[in-house]
Amino acid sequence: MDICDYLKNALKKGLQLKDKIYEQVINTNPADLLLCETLFHNANGYIGIRSCFEEGYAGEFSAVNPGQKEVSPDNVSRNSVLRNFVSSIRGSYINGFYDFIDMPQAEKLYGLIEEKQIMLNIADTQSIRLFLGSEEFNMWTGKIIESRRILNMSKGFSERLVRWVSPDGKEVEICIRRTASFTRPCLFLIDYSVKAINFSSPVSFISVHKGDVENFFDPADPRVASHVQRHLDIVNFNTENNASFITAETVRSKLKVCTAVDHVLSKEGQIKTVFDNKTAVCTIDTQIEQNESITLFKYSIFTDSIRYEACDKKARHELTSVLSVTPDTLYLEQQNYLDDYWNNAFLEIDGDDELQQAVQFNMYQLVQSAGKDGHCSIAAKGLSGEGYEGHYFWDTEIYVEPFFVFGNPAIARGLISHRYSTLEEARKNALLLGHKSGVLFPWRTIMGKECSGFFPAGTAQYHINGDIAWSVIFYFLATGDLDFIIQKGAELVFECARLWIDVGNFYNGQFRINCVTGPDEYTCVVNNNYYTNVCAKRNLEWAVKFYELLKNAGKLDLLAKKINLLNEEIVVFANAAQNMYIPYDEQSGINPQDDSFLSKKRINIADIPANKKPMLLHYHPLFLYRHQVTKQADTVLAHILFDDADPQTVKNSFLYYKDITTHDSSLSTCIFSIAASRLGFYEDAYKYFGNSASLDLRNTAGNTKDGLHIANMGGTYMAIIFGFAGVKVKENGLYISPHLPKHWKTCRFNLRYKGSLIRVTIEGEKINISLIEGKSVPVYVNDKPYII
Amino acid sequence: MDICDYLKNALKKGLQLKDKIYEQVINTNPADLLLCETLFHNANGYIGIRSCFEEGYAGEFSAVNPGQKEVSPDNVSRNSVLRNFVSSIRGSYINGFYDFIDMPQAEKLYGLIEEKQIMLNIADTQSIRLFLGSEEFNMWTGKIIESRRILNMSKGFSERLVRWVSPDGKEVEICIRRTASFTRPCLFLIDYSVKAINFSSPVSFISVHKGDVENFFDPADPRVASHVQRHLDIVNFNTENNASFITAETVRSKLKVCTAVDHVLSKEGQIKTVFDNKTAVCTIDTQIEQNESITLFKYSIFTDSIRYEACDKKARHELTSVLSVTPDTLYLEQQNYLDDYWNNAFLEIDGDDELQQAVQFNMYQLVQSAGKDGHCSIAAKGLSGEGYEGHYFWDTEIYVEPFFVFGNPAIARGLISHRYSTLEEARKNALLLGHKSGVLFPWRTIMGKECSGFFPAGTAQYHINGDIAWSVIFYFLATGDLDFIIQKGAELVFECARLWIDVGNFYNGQFRINCVTGPDEYTCVVNNNYYTNVCAKRNLEWAVKFYELLKNAGKLDLLAKKINLLNEEIVVFANAAQNMYIPYDEQSGINPQDDSFLSKKRINIADIPANKKPMLLHYHPLFLYRHQVTKQADTVLAHILFDDADPQTVKNSFLYYKDITTHDSSLSTCIFSIAASRLGFYEDAYKYFGNSASLDLRNTAGNTKDGLHIANMGGTYMAIIFGFAGVKVKENGLYISPHLPKHWKTCRFNLRYKGSLIRVTIEGEKINISLIEGKSVPVYVNDKPYII
Repeated sequence: MDICDYLKNALKKGLQLKDKIYEQVINTNPADLLLCETLFHNANGYIGIRSCFEEGYAGEFSAVNPGQKEVSPDNVSRNSVLRNFVSSIRGSYINGFYDFIDMPQAEKLYGLIEEKQIMLNIADTQSIRLFLGSEEFNMWTGKIIESRRILNMSKGFSERLVRWVSPDGKEVEICIRRTASFTRPCLFLIDYSVKAINFSSPVSFISVHKGDVENFFDPADPRVASHVQRHLDIVNFNTENNASFITAETVRSKLKVCTAVDHVLSKEGQIKTVFDNKTAVCTIDTQIEQNESITLFKYSIFTDSIRYEACDKKARHELTSVLSVTPDTLYLEQQNYLDDYWNNAFLEIDGDDELQQAVQFNMYQLVQSAGKDGHCSIAAKGLSGEGYEGHYFWDTEIYVEPFFVFGNPAIARGLISHRYSTLEEARKNALLLGHKSGVLFPWRTIMGKECSGFFPAGTAQYHINGDIAWSVIFYFLATGDLDFIIQKGAELVFECARLWIDVGNFYNGQFRINCVTGPDEYTCVVNNNYYTNVCAKRNLEWAVKFYELLKNAGKLDLLAKKINLLNEEIVVFANAAQNMYIPYDEQSGINPQDDSFLSKKRINIADIPANKKPMLLHYHPLFLYRHQVTKQADTVLAHILFDDADPQTVKNSFLYYKDITTHDSSLSTCIFSIAASRLGFYEDAYKYFGNSASLDLRNTAGNTKDGLHIANMGGTYMAIIFGFAGVKVKENGLYISPHLPKHWKTCRFNLRYKGSLIRVTIEGEKINISLIEGKSVPVYVNDKPYII
Repeated sequence: MDICDYLKNALKKGLQLKDKIYEQVINTNPADLLLCETLFHNANGYIGIRSCFEEGYAGEFSAVNPGQKEVSPDNVSRNSVLRNFVSSIRGSYINGFYDFIDMPQAEKLYGLIEEKQIMLNIADTQSIRLFLGSEEFNMWTGKIIESRRILNMSKGFSERLVRWVSPDGKEVEICIRRTASFTRPCLFLIDYSVKAINFSSPVSFISVHKGDVENFFDPADPRVASHVQRHLDIVNFNTENNASFITAETVRSKLKVCTAVDHVLSKEGQIKTVFDNKTAVCTIDTQIEQNESITLFKYSIFTDSIRYEACDKKARHELTSVLSVTPDTLYLEQQNYLDDYWNNAFLEIDGDDELQQAVQFNMYQLVQSAGKDGHCSIAAKGLSGEGYEGHYFWDTEIYVEPFFVFGNPAIARGLISHRYSTLEEARKNALLLGHKSGVLFPWRTIMGKECSGFFPAGTAQYHINGDIAWSVIFYFLATGDLDFIIQKGAELVFECARLWIDVGNFYNGQFRINCVTGPDEYTCVVNNNYYTNVCAKRNLEWAVKFYELLKNAGKLDLLAKKINLLNEEIVVFANAAQNMYIPYDEQSGINPQDDSFLSKKRINIADIPANKKPMLLHYHPLFLYRHQVTKQADTVLAHILFDDADPQTVKNSFLYYKDITTHDSSLSTCIFSIAASRLGFYEDAYKYFGNSASLDLRNTAGNTKDGLHIANMGGTYMAIIFGFAGVKVKENGLYISPHLPKHWKTCRFNLRYKGSLIRVTIEGEKINISLIEGKSVPVYVNDKPYII
């Protein structure tokens, strides 16, 4: 059965949720095309390729009659910005691969960041033009009979299926499958099948491999680059037996990237690759007979000098390796990887198909986005677009790691290892900020240096240190992996703890932390942000605990010597933690977001006109700072993560903040959903959850074209596990206190806990927990202890 | 007696303080040359011309043997940036004349300013080369026998006197006098005399008039432009009877400027002007006989389209006008203007020659800097350099206006009128910041739009509104000029008051002002900055008072109608003022700078290493914000200006803040001097005063090359009048409670008060006050009432 048949059959029998298939009829509306480039992108945590049409789009949709315009990859494989219209972001990315770029400050002050890193568009290897005789296939001429896109999340590829009749009447069925291999991270495979329905004729492909690409820019959008800038110089290009190799070097960071492309045709044909102005053009000529299917396999290999000293050699090696196996083997590897993935990250909701699909989609995007090699992390937009310039934020630690800790601890460990690898940069950053000890992790970064342009809403978010500590603690509590704590985790927690001691100070007997910004960027540079203080307290407490654990395990000395850690310092940590000032307001019975939050003007967010949302795009920061209005969960998030506040205070706080939180950040509704669940506001919880789960699929923020909101995707998972299922990980065991949304019949999920894999099945009031793998573990169900 | 003789005589008899002459032996050290360009610049409030050598400097002092290098004005009339060396800032400026320039933000947020105004370098009309036969005069060849510069502050010109022997042995005496006319603000006159001591020969001048100039830039200095940018397009140039006219238009603001230059020679000669690539070159050829003096008069006229619809016509008219009178008449006009000026602003200290000279120098620079036509104000650097890009700050209202209110109320009125003329821009600024009523003046500006790049230390300084209100109130109290209040002053005060109501809010019964920055830029965006709250309170109180005054004078209706001011609003003003929250700390007995200031870490400024000062160039803003360290007088300034705090609190506060104030701003020591005087810390007062008085003359901040510190110069005056003389202006009269520094024999000064001119003479404990002009006025001496 060829690919197209498989697809048609799948569509015929109706898509099943358990098939994990997301499908759309193709719409050539420019905005939808851009959106789908993101939604259907292929990634494996190392590379990401946006899902553009191989043959390109009409160059100028709005300006000319598209039928009269020749469409060529050359026309579209560059950034083209038309008036009010961004046609395409034809990007391919490598996680953690960057160049430096100037970021001049409007007013120069000491220590302000003036150079940032950006993730680069690496090369275009997705362009393939198809000629049927003298006619070229594209979506804007001839007649489209049927056209669909499919994201197959259980098999790990995307597909485009088009039935098309050319202007001269040639009918074809085209099926294009794209795979970013999880088992061979350097490989991107396009599997391009054509079936001639009513004709026989010569058929040609022109397949392009272009290294001379630029990052996307849009002068009208402040969130992406405003002008084109050259980041890659091609330093070598050649062909070997019609395979093309391009090696480029970044202009400032002096990193190298190599892309290699080769083609295999399913039948006899002529294949010829030549370089034209540093772009490899491969021409594949053959003949197609009526009812015949032919397939072109385009193998693209991406390697870089961060991972491989000789990335060009590595590319050759990888190319040889993938060509030595059949495509079916590659698909099988992919399938096996994902079987294992879904088995670990198993989560099924019965009774809510739409949101179940959204949750599946989000979980799939998480594994597509997550760096798995310790050289990178998870960008805010994953590898799906250039929004936030490929930077890593606290999103990784707070919003995504819980998912991987429960579903794939090795990935979580890799993410923490990546932070660990940037400790020296964090130390320099702390020095730049005037701190005499400890490290301060950057608010946004790729290779470890701070990239925040506006420090009050960036660098000042010192909670990043506590977030990283939290993720280490969470990892340890859920895995019990003391070895990793000894190797890396404890050092991170100690160094982060040291900073709190330097940044804070005792005043009236309490340890206070001034002039930092909490998660809520609508209030910057405040004193005693509740979230920050609680998170620093947790960091300090666990620095003490890890110290004891390592000491008891006889593993302290080496580390203590390495980082010059003395027992006296631990005493200081304990003292600061114990006396940490925690803002509390008697009158309202809530934890105020910071010292002065409650004295500010209240804002009624219902009064904010729709055209003034999100507020950050319509109000001056000083206006926002001066009002009781928050962009996202801040104190509410602290109550979830640190879970040690008085329950009545937590409830009062939730009720207080929910009225003044705009959720202008995509990191917010998932957290409010958890809080609402825990507090028994079940309808609210479900509403918040729905908002979070479908944010990208429904493009509710309007900017999914620039990439997925990865943290929110992790947050959706958290909303189910920490919220509806009421899971908590405590020192003495796993806690589960579920309460499902009314119309959910069952919710079943797997969790990795202390090396074991357990299956939780919730059906109304009934809870079933079973051990799938590993040894028995303690679980508290509705606070009653069990051993599973 | 020719000019050189006059000068030689003056030098021979020894300079007298009462001659108001500041003199230096010329030093061709590059840094000193740059410094002297500022110190000896000529300005009249409309134009300012830096004091560069007419013939230019050696092009590359350090790189080549200067004697082997031809020096030409063309070489030096451009910005030349050498390695580690800035050779010259050859600038001519017009007050209030600007172009717009991009100021991109590193991170784009709503409302952040992305375009600023800058004061432009207009033209070079100061270049004159002198040839004695085939030898060209310059300071780096031949032999300098004597060379001096003189700033004649009683006559209003600067002079350079050089006795020079050419390589071939021709000895000349050169005297160059430069005048920016106070009575004819468009006129800059160079009076270039040469006397042949030991030879006769042909003599030539090549005099340049260049419109194609650029602003100074220095890639290494964050405080000035970092790269050259074109701001002026020459739109017309021509000669008329050897006079040259150049009209240029600004690139973005589309303003026009015209410069006209003509020459008169004291004896027969050939004068020929031709344009060479838009630069007018005038060649003057004549013959000099041994012992003969010849003089070239170079008249430069500056006009602009802000003041004159047809600025080119105006330039022609002005040129004709100045040429119709003799230079002696022009000098007489200048002398008369300054006689009047010094008579009003009379201030003599007996017993402290050095500081008396510094004070004279500063007072002279104030009249050179102050805009007098209502179209402009006083730039932070006056018209002496490009530091702070010619922007106006609160410096005008708080540091300079008191001097003019006492010495020349018309100038003070003009400065307030200029603010008044920018009310509409201030209204737009308030809207941008989200305020529904009132106006918010920009922190830094030329034409009224905000130019702050970093809003926390710029736009957030809302006290600018209260500063402007304070200056109106001070003007009114000292002059009694109700007419001006009716015309302009009250409207300013009302509109500024309205903003406080919108920015502040009631909390626990008190009116609070959150998220603003006080004068101290080492602590930004705080709640209830003491200075701001007290200044807002004063603003609101006087809005109520002016409302009553206007109502009683029957002058309210027109204004109330114009700005839609209702009695209800006045009630709100009064209520907010009465309930204004004033930070006070019981424990320390001081007014804390803001709500959280005292909870921060203290810093011992004695521990800051010398190479880490000023702190703003060596510490990240967050470090500064997090510590109890202040850049400048903040609460201490409030205690001086608003003078209604409890004396013990004032004393406690002074003692507290003096230990944590770095005086990294030039606006600080003058205020600390006043505070120390008032509190009886007389030695401190004198020390602070000395630091303030000689800041520019001694270049203690190291950046006088970029322009004078004008606010500090006004502050020096304030330190004497408000400090040593203990002057206060209250509603019921003028208060004087002097205490001179020990070694001062007498201090005598004039004050304009309610239209009268009084002379105060302080000699030890004795105080003599006499009426020079006008009707008698009430004066309180050491709190005892007298009628003078």
